[in-house]
Amino acid sequence: MRLYPQSMTRLIEELGKMPGIGQKTAERLANYILRLPAEDAMALAQAIQDLKKSVRNCSICFNITETDPCHICQDANRDRTVVCVVEQPADVITIEKTGQYNGLYHVLLGHISPLESIDPEDLTMEKLLSRVKDGTVKEVIIATNLNMEGDATALYISKQLEGYEKKVTRLARGMPSGGQLEYASVAVIADSLQGRRII
Amino acid sequence: MRLYPQSMTRLIEELGKMPGIGQKTAERLANYILRLPAEDAMALAQAIQDLKKSVRNCSICFNITETDPCHICQDANRDRTVVCVVEQPADVITIEKTGQYNGLYHVLLGHISPLESIDPEDLTMEKLLSRVKDGTVKEVIIATNLNMEGDATALYISKQLEGYEKKVTRLARGMPSGGQLEYASVAVIADSLQGRRII
Repeated sequence: MRLYPQSMTRLIEELGKMPGIGQKTAERLANYILRLPAEDAMALAQAIQDLKKSVRNCSICFNITETDPCHICQDANRDRTVVCVVEQPADVITIEKTGQYNGLYHVLLGHISPLESIDPEDLTMEKLLSRVKDGTVKEVIIATNLNMEGDATALYISKQLEGYEKKVTRLARGMPSGGQLEYASVAVIADSLQGRRII
Repeated sequence: MRLYPQSMTRLIEELGKMPGIGQKTAERLANYILRLPAEDAMALAQAIQDLKKSVRNCSICFNITETDPCHICQDANRDRTVVCVVEQPADVITIEKTGQYNGLYHVLLGHISPLESIDPEDLTMEKLLSRVKDGTVKEVIIATNLNMEGDATALYISKQLEGYEKKVTRLARGMPSGGQLEYASVAVIADSLQGRRII
């Protein structure tokens, strides 16, 4: 049964590849685009093309940027003695939004994962290590995800920096603020107990 | 605080205009597009452009199509004595998916709504009426939405066809299959009682 015109089917397919977009949502979005005035639809298509053309990775921290170095690496007000290591550019945004951090970043563009055959060489690890081994950097905050791959990556980095007189820290593990013990998993409560702090 | 490169901000804005896509989802989708290989991102942009270029409305039923008349209007196996009237092209797909209907369609491209100042002249109403007043059509199934605007539109159509010896029907109102009385609204139960059928 052929339901949609061919070009509609193709757009639904393309939209459906996006994360969290199922068949139903893809159809809804395609119908929305169909009803858009032509110039608005073209603006959306253009925005996608422009993004891929003008955004690259910063040659220092590998965050996404339109200028090289990126505006964070260029910012004279940033504390150059601290580097926060994250997996993806999106993680930089998340941390920036807290307004709690004024150091520099390093984006690994992934995590170490033997299962997915992702080795340190597939990441920007070499650049990170040569960057932080430099005298300026005093602390490396490892803000990779709090899962198996993120932990493996954190462990690898801390091993590589052994003997370099750098403070290597990891994000705190515990109960999320606003959380209730009743609904927390055993692992989270165990982490939270282990990391308890004097008040 | 400038978080994203400019072209990223623009794409997030464009994506965020889509229905059901909030700021968070728009950011997630933009990040996904950013990580796509260039050719996949271009394929998505191209699919949007192609859709707007190659899809038009059928000159008979106003459903979306790449050929004119559309494949349903052209189909010799369709029952030409029944016309099902819907608001949007997406509604045709929904009815086609049931596999229960083998007649023709007419897409109004909207509904009558005094509040939104949408009059019958803003829809494909004139074309519908001249189409169904023709001798071939025996039944007009009004499948506009079951809300105030859809009902007003249905009423208008049935008034216009008074005295034309056509059967004018409306989709059944009642409890959705699988529904529980406990959670149904009074209006739905009232409809369901009123439309009760002998078993």
